[in-house]
Amino acid sequence: MAASEATQRATAESAEPAGWSGPRSLTLPALALESGAALAPVAVAYETWGRLAPGRDNVALLCHALTGDAHACDLARPDDPRAGWWNPLVGPGRVFDTNRLFVVCSNVLGSCYGTTGPTSPRADAGDADDAGEQARWGLDFPHVTVGDMAQAQRALLAALGVERLAVVAGGSLGGLQALEWAIAWPELVERAIIVGAAQRLPAQGLAIDDIARQAIMADPRWQGGAYAPGEGPATGLALARMLAMLTYTSAAGLEARFGRAPATRASGWPAWGPRRDVETYLHHQADKLARRFDANSYLYLSAAMDAYDAAAAWGSDAEALGRIRAQTLVVGMSTDWLYPQELARGLAAGIVAAGGNARYAEIDSLDGHDAFLKDWGQMDALLRPFLNGQG
Amino acid sequence: MAASEATQRATAESAEPAGWSGPRSLTLPALALESGAALAPVAVAYETWGRLAPGRDNVALLCHALTGDAHACDLARPDDPRAGWWNPLVGPGRVFDTNRLFVVCSNVLGSCYGTTGPTSPRADAGDADDAGEQARWGLDFPHVTVGDMAQAQRALLAALGVERLAVVAGGSLGGLQALEWAIAWPELVERAIIVGAAQRLPAQGLAIDDIARQAIMADPRWQGGAYAPGEGPATGLALARMLAMLTYTSAAGLEARFGRAPATRASGWPAWGPRRDVETYLHHQADKLARRFDANSYLYLSAAMDAYDAAAAWGSDAEALGRIRAQTLVVGMSTDWLYPQELARGLAAGIVAAGGNARYAEIDSLDGHDAFLKDWGQMDALLRPFLNGQG
Repeated sequence: MAASEATQRATAESAEPAGWSGPRSLTLPALALESGAALAPVAVAYETWGRLAPGRDNVALLCHALTGDAHACDLARPDDPRAGWWNPLVGPGRVFDTNRLFVVCSNVLGSCYGTTGPTSPRADAGDADDAGEQARWGLDFPHVTVGDMAQAQRALLAALGVERLAVVAGGSLGGLQALEWAIAWPELVERAIIVGAAQRLPAQGLAIDDIARQAIMADPRWQGGAYAPGEGPATGLALARMLAMLTYTSAAGLEARFGRAPATRASGWPAWGPRRDVETYLHHQADKLARRFDANSYLYLSAAMDAYDAAAAWGSDAEALGRIRAQTLVVGMSTDWLYPQELARGLAAGIVAAGGNARYAEIDSLDGHDAFLKDWGQMDALLRPFLNGQG
Repeated sequence: MAASEATQRATAESAEPAGWSGPRSLTLPALALESGAALAPVAVAYETWGRLAPGRDNVALLCHALTGDAHACDLARPDDPRAGWWNPLVGPGRVFDTNRLFVVCSNVLGSCYGTTGPTSPRADAGDADDAGEQARWGLDFPHVTVGDMAQAQRALLAALGVERLAVVAGGSLGGLQALEWAIAWPELVERAIIVGAAQRLPAQGLAIDDIARQAIMADPRWQGGAYAPGEGPATGLALARMLAMLTYTSAAGLEARFGRAPATRASGWPAWGPRRDVETYLHHQADKLARRFDANSYLYLSAAMDAYDAAAAWGSDAEALGRIRAQTLVVGMSTDWLYPQELARGLAAGIVAAGGNARYAEIDSLDGHDAFLKDWGQMDALLRPFLNGQG
């Protein structure tokens, strides 16, 4: 078995599809943050697919959501929707057509998948300790914003020789980044696709995100953020994820899928009374995240999502949205209760009212906020004509 | 100041209004539970207002919600809506008119306000320990159901010489009790008022309640339920309450009241980024509950709410609802997302479809599930004519 696995791995490596960069990292000497602080140096983990055109005018920047990474697409596994977070939408002949576009996706600032964040070693912390461990940022990592994430993306693209974007696209926190790009650098963005997002998060979402953060910080293993690698507040992070997962689903979707059915899978979480399927679904999702994500990164990134306000730097929505020159497609989800569809609709209307070119489209789905990561047929049908200039 | 406070207290005590029983307790020798277990003895804390008519036909049983108590009304403070949980609805000339009705409210089985629950001493545990402490039930307390709560209420009423109810009324978990009364003993209930409830809780509510319970059980101070009095999992209970409070509000209500406004009050919970008003509101509510409620009771009662299924004992909704002989008023709340209004509407329709006499009415409010504890004008306008036989 071990030999067979090794063979498979070698095969996968040697079968690296043409046009995929593989996982890469770029080190920026420094990044000036919106807070006024400077972060130096900054590693940016990224991947690219397709080829940069001689005119450098075929770049698609994909922006991932809260716990995502740079692996938007896995060309070697085109039929596995989970092999990359937008896998069904990226590749030869797909919505983000790698025969035509140079697709770029980078891990956001503050995350834990290669780009500098609270788990990263501090370059300014001097020598490694006796155990050979370099001190990590932990909570000394500065607060970062959606604007900072976009700045890091822009610096990465500059290093790749790219200035203008044919399209910037993302959902949820990724949608905020796409919106920020369109507002901050209107002359650099030809098209923007903003999914499941709006100018700012409403009160209910702010409240849920705070409860999730409190659950992380209440876990004694959080230790004020100073936990050792691998010994973080897994329980608190899992509770946060259960809550977040709820906001990614819809009441109708949970009812249709689970209702009050008894559990069909085991869970390590203590049962109280009869165990139900909807509970163990959340436990399973939560345990998965707690194994793969860093609790401090979660705090930083969810706080960045909460803090984002498109109007903040410009004085008003009209001023901010009036800057946009991109052709913009705003996609709402019919059962989204994190960024309810009326807010996505309002974003498109606000751009139009400010003199811009925007269209609203809606995914009709029971999948809630997560529809942009599940309802591939509708996503394809909405995004493809827009990208082909027919939408 | 201290002298003045003492005087006020003495005055309040001496001014006990005619017709109020004061806090009372009845001990039932035993109670047979739906699970087959027997609980013995069982204390039931209760209060009454008004006088039992010679014909014993003027009894109103009020059923409280998850963290409520027997103090539905404070006749000495009629103008303070919070002096009793339905204070504006009970009293001379009020909806539940104590000049006419004999109003009874008891603390539910499993709670921590005088009726036997996990914090109660075990009569079967032998002598007190060296410190003079009697062993408490803790998690050895049997699981209890909404049916068990109704049985305890029925036994209390029997001890008071009462068999039939002129009306049974309650909201949320109290609404489930009112529904259970109407189904279990159709010949004993003349009118039923069921607010913010339905035949069963949908999947989203089940999920939220489980996350809340997990937050309690994840707090190391929970100690498998064996914490000493006053040393319970206050943080976990507070997190559970923050979540529950969210389900008692509505997105539109939170937006209207708080939006993204900065905090106007302090909070002992750790801040992450700018502190917002909606957060400290939840912290404040959570801290209040953690000081006054028992974590194990919370587990038992929320599980009872989740487990309730009106059809369970009868095979189907049609069979269960077809038993009801009471004139029934079902009140939904326009922005309730714990028991969404369409479910309350469906309960009324189900009773009518099964041949019963039911009417649906709705509170139009941004107050979410909690509207039955806040929107006094609408509650009065809906309940008063119904109780006067004109609704």
